[in-house]
Amino acid sequence: MKIEMICTGEEVLSGQIVDTNAAWAANALMDHGIEMQQRITVGDRLDDLVSVFQERSHHADIILVNGGLGPTSDDMSSQAMALAKEVPLIENAIWRRRMEDWFTRNGREMPPSNLKQAMLPESAVMVDNPVGTACGFRVKLNRAWLFFTPGVPFEFKQMVNEQFIPFVKSLADSHIEVAVHKLLTIGNGESVLANRLENLTLPGGMTLGYRSFMPYIEIKLFARGDDVIEQLPETVSLVKQVLGDCVVAENLDSLAGVIHQQLLAQGASLSIAESCTGGMIASNLVALAGSSAYLHQGLVTYSNESKVKVLGVDPATLDDHGAVSIATVEEMAKGVRNILDSDYALATSGIAGPDGGSEQKPVGTVAIALATKSGVYSQMLKFPARSRELVRSLSTAVALDMLRRELLQQPVIVDYGSYHRFPK
Amino acid sequence: MKIEMICTGEEVLSGQIVDTNAAWAANALMDHGIEMQQRITVGDRLDDLVSVFQERSHHADIILVNGGLGPTSDDMSSQAMALAKEVPLIENAIWRRRMEDWFTRNGREMPPSNLKQAMLPESAVMVDNPVGTACGFRVKLNRAWLFFTPGVPFEFKQMVNEQFIPFVKSLADSHIEVAVHKLLTIGNGESVLANRLENLTLPGGMTLGYRSFMPYIEIKLFARGDDVIEQLPETVSLVKQVLGDCVVAENLDSLAGVIHQQLLAQGASLSIAESCTGGMIASNLVALAGSSAYLHQGLVTYSNESKVKVLGVDPATLDDHGAVSIATVEEMAKGVRNILDSDYALATSGIAGPDGGSEQKPVGTVAIALATKSGVYSQMLKFPARSRELVRSLSTAVALDMLRRELLQQPVIVDYGSYHRFPK
Repeated sequence: MKIEMICTGEEVLSGQIVDTNAAWAANALMDHGIEMQQRITVGDRLDDLVSVFQERSHHADIILVNGGLGPTSDDMSSQAMALAKEVPLIENAIWRRRMEDWFTRNGREMPPSNLKQAMLPESAVMVDNPVGTACGFRVKLNRAWLFFTPGVPFEFKQMVNEQFIPFVKSLADSHIEVAVHKLLTIGNGESVLANRLENLTLPGGMTLGYRSFMPYIEIKLFARGDDVIEQLPETVSLVKQVLGDCVVAENLDSLAGVIHQQLLAQGASLSIAESCTGGMIASNLVALAGSSAYLHQGLVTYSNESKVKVLGVDPATLDDHGAVSIATVEEMAKGVRNILDSDYALATSGIAGPDGGSEQKPVGTVAIALATKSGVYSQMLKFPARSRELVRSLSTAVALDMLRRELLQQPVIVDYGSYHRFPK
Repeated sequence: MKIEMICTGEEVLSGQIVDTNAAWAANALMDHGIEMQQRITVGDRLDDLVSVFQERSHHADIILVNGGLGPTSDDMSSQAMALAKEVPLIENAIWRRRMEDWFTRNGREMPPSNLKQAMLPESAVMVDNPVGTACGFRVKLNRAWLFFTPGVPFEFKQMVNEQFIPFVKSLADSHIEVAVHKLLTIGNGESVLANRLENLTLPGGMTLGYRSFMPYIEIKLFARGDDVIEQLPETVSLVKQVLGDCVVAENLDSLAGVIHQQLLAQGASLSIAESCTGGMIASNLVALAGSSAYLHQGLVTYSNESKVKVLGVDPATLDDHGAVSIATVEEMAKGVRNILDSDYALATSGIAGPDGGSEQKPVGTVAIALATKSGVYSQMLKFPARSRELVRSLSTAVALDMLRRELLQQPVIVDYGSYHRFPK
């Protein structure tokens, strides 16, 4: 079965916004074992839309169309589809009532421009959008079902998950169940991970996929068919054995999520003192609703004066060992933990670059410490220094992983693979 | 002239990576007044590549092809182009020597797999890539010039700027100069800005464009032709007059950039105390190399205890006014400035949501203060509360803008438009 996507909208084509819907949809489909064949991005020109709908309808079985269902003059997906199929636009009474109710509930009168959103090509099958005024629909033209979805990411995602994917499955030749297990890793590039997993013989019907988003590489194990799905847990544990400590989360999108869960569950508190990471560790946690329950404070003590005055680092330590050192970062962690007697504290100090490196401590050198009520763990690592952003995000990941391992009662300091650890 | 783009690569199609090259290229072309008509994304399947090259070559004048020029087996753009044109692949001696030199300079032997990167379709015109081993080239097929570029963003951007855009201009019917002026705004949605600028009569040959990237809307003024370019400064100042205080930067990508320049130039220092923004203000500045010269510290004092203990906020203030209040945020700003006697200090405290709001202080309520050596400015605003991320990034933008205005000796507190300000 051939599946394609057509993304509409001048702002997507012209790069005013990056098309995250397309990447998200391809990923969501892949999680169900469904592959996309091609994607076309077109602007808001009626002729272009009509011709691309007609042309692709001869080649694909299902076409996911995104955008152009709004009330303004540059929203023309419905009109273009009617022209492509040479049928009139007809008002959908159900959707019109739905919109009127929606506006009434929100205490507003429906502007006449919204009426347009109830006009669907004749023969279109309405697709419900419970979270917006843009009506989804699907139309058969030539070989293809064209499935129209709203551009607003929130509405789009819900419609894809709840309506589009079940629709694709209902059309698929055979109803094969697909299960996915995701492993989040840090510390190795995609090619290194692929090499290590190369010699693993996977059961037939099971495949591996990779997705890279800084600072993580996500490994996905796809199992197709009930027999294969049964073998998934065993294969997952085999893969985890091969990869070892670089696996930092399962079926989760970030390390911060694991820590958030654990700190809430354990009722423990956290303080953070950051230098080179510059607030990124705190920001990762503050992004999660409810983090105020455990996060006492996150201090970016960027200057030496601030390390001394706010955290109580001994000026002699800074003089003898430098700001980027095991000794300093341990005092930072202990100092920030002490202020409010938090259960845990993390601290980082390093050289994010592009300047500030030396032969002994090149750009990418970062010291990281975790203080608990009973002691302190620390390590100094050399990260790849391709960019300031990369050094900061890798340091953040390792710091969070040290805390994660402590919370799960695992050894705190481990080898991830490609990060070089300085001798203590 | 019709220009299209073909993006190749399974990882782009399947959403393993978001296609930022495409958006970047469309934007870069737009800055030269060149519009893209359509974009197609295809995976690494030889048949698909050949047929899309052939099919589009009848419709477009220039096709920018991105990706598939590497040394591995799934890099097949060159081979696909040769098949599409029905010509053989021929080794390009210049490029082979270039690669061998490159490897020699880096003290390595060239792996045989790299030889593939010197194999170009017969009749291809080589396009230089001074920063990588992937050779660019262009080939004429039917109506179109297909212009092949590497997928690595760094190499791609250089080739587009230095080779592709001049090539497009050389083919353009007339050589019209294009100038662009960009205004970064906060505080108003795109439709509000568009409404306000609607009644402005622009000189013929001048157009407006919008780009939205949280928390900013960027307005671009394009001028085509020398006569029109001459009128650009006058029009820019007219537009700025209409938009007023919501313009926060010109020809820059972020507010942090302006502050970075100004603090460095004035030799002034900064401390930050953040609550709801959770380190985002500090992170924005730490992202810029050299920020350690002025950033003393950025303290995320998330808990009340931390506000009292670290910043010296009076517990009575917290009791009487609450953490989200003008009184508290002013004491936070003064407190964090005092620690190291910094020239300036910023502080935020607010309700990022989704929980924690009340009738009096709903989600999206944020108090912001700027302390200087001579006093404190503060305001409490109600931001749109669509997401935690949005509230945090709008608060960060307003805090940075207060400092920017102070550094430029402008009134610190102004109306941006759609943010509601609480009476003090």
